[in-house]
Amino acid sequence: MATPKPALKALVFDVFGTVVDWRGSLIREGRRLGKRRNLELDWAAFADAWRAGYKPAMARVRSGELPWTTIDRLHRMILEDLLRRFGIRGLSEADKFEFNRAWHRLAPWPDARAGLARLKRRYVIATLSNGNVALLVNMARHAGLPWDTVICAELFHHYKPDPEAYLGTAALLDLAPAQVMLVAAHKDDLRAAAACGLKTGFVPRPLEKGPTSEPDTKPEGDFTVNAKDFVDLARRLGA
Amino acid sequence: MATPKPALKALVFDVFGTVVDWRGSLIREGRRLGKRRNLELDWAAFADAWRAGYKPAMARVRSGELPWTTIDRLHRMILEDLLRRFGIRGLSEADKFEFNRAWHRLAPWPDARAGLARLKRRYVIATLSNGNVALLVNMARHAGLPWDTVICAELFHHYKPDPEAYLGTAALLDLAPAQVMLVAAHKDDLRAAAACGLKTGFVPRPLEKGPTSEPDTKPEGDFTVNAKDFVDLARRLGA
Repeated sequence: MATPKPALKALVFDVFGTVVDWRGSLIREGRRLGKRRNLELDWAAFADAWRAGYKPAMARVRSGELPWTTIDRLHRMILEDLLRRFGIRGLSEADKFEFNRAWHRLAPWPDARAGLARLKRRYVIATLSNGNVALLVNMARHAGLPWDTVICAELFHHYKPDPEAYLGTAALLDLAPAQVMLVAAHKDDLRAAAACGLKTGFVPRPLEKGPTSEPDTKPEGDFTVNAKDFVDLARRLGA
Repeated sequence: MATPKPALKALVFDVFGTVVDWRGSLIREGRRLGKRRNLELDWAAFADAWRAGYKPAMARVRSGELPWTTIDRLHRMILEDLLRRFGIRGLSEADKFEFNRAWHRLAPWPDARAGLARLKRRYVIATLSNGNVALLVNMARHAGLPWDTVICAELFHHYKPDPEAYLGTAALLDLAPAQVMLVAAHKDDLRAAAACGLKTGFVPRPLEKGPTSEPDTKPEGDFTVNAKDFVDLARRLGA
């Protein structure tokens, strides 16, 4: 059946770092745990190490070394390793379960909710995250993110930047790749999406990796849109 | 990892007939098309025939006679057949595409929105429908249904009542089946969910098949909850 294929219909969002501030949230959660369990620790270093374990863990799944494993489980595997490396002992199973769930409670960047609400009036908005469904649903409820639906690597058993994740998302939305825009703060994610035919929206998050980091926040001519934040993105997309 | 498994966490909803009034909506859409294209027709009979084609079409997928096929495409196959049977000629491809999209624009029962909003405060709420993702996302936007996420047969390539649909839904929500309740107006759907360990919420929709039908609306002791409508369901579930 011939489907009319007009312009942009849906925006799909990278989540960790683009929509939510994983680092600030994990540091707060770490301090809270430290207070409760009497742990003296550099929680910023702990947060950075937790996140640093993420790409190598996904690479083990992408290469086939590990069978399909959700981010919740990968986060927990990395956590167990970090507890040893940071010399943290005596946490109960419930402590560890709850701390791992910090990833379900990440706080949105200040412009995220307002920008998404505005974009939703004109476009379908969904996640396109390496997080798993339960994590993203819990995060949306906690942070007030008004997704039309949650789409993620778990649905395809392929982590970004595997093309299956980008093409599978367009297929589930019954759209051509060019009718879908990936919004992300990470240029490698956007370039992988563009290679699959998706449109690209770059939103820099200069504080993602902390106040002393120097991430690449330069706009690029090959992205469909470069915006300052989600509210600016809505304005540029006529929403 | 040991996950705490308390009581009910998520409600998942059958959609066609339980959340939305497919029959009334299709009749209205048919009359609108008839006016525009000068067609005299019994649109109630047409709507009933369209819906009657649904289970046999899914059965062809469930048996393996057809490869995985979305409801959008099954609806279109049935539509083509009905246009012949009802002697309707001269519709353009755009007419047929738009008429098939009537399934994306079904109207909610009067209590649905308010009941879902109340239930969402306490529980994760999601679809568990044989509709496809794009259909359910478009319907939610059109009808104002506040799902946390859209879950459906398309994600599992299994139509209800295949157990994969019920068990796959609990797995995506990272819940045990007993932490999930299927809400439906159809007893066969509820019994298939119960066989997979899900809790069951029966909400009768006496008008689903029209004012002269006599559907089975009797409460049953083997369902977890019998409610009058979604607002009554929220009250009974403490939401």
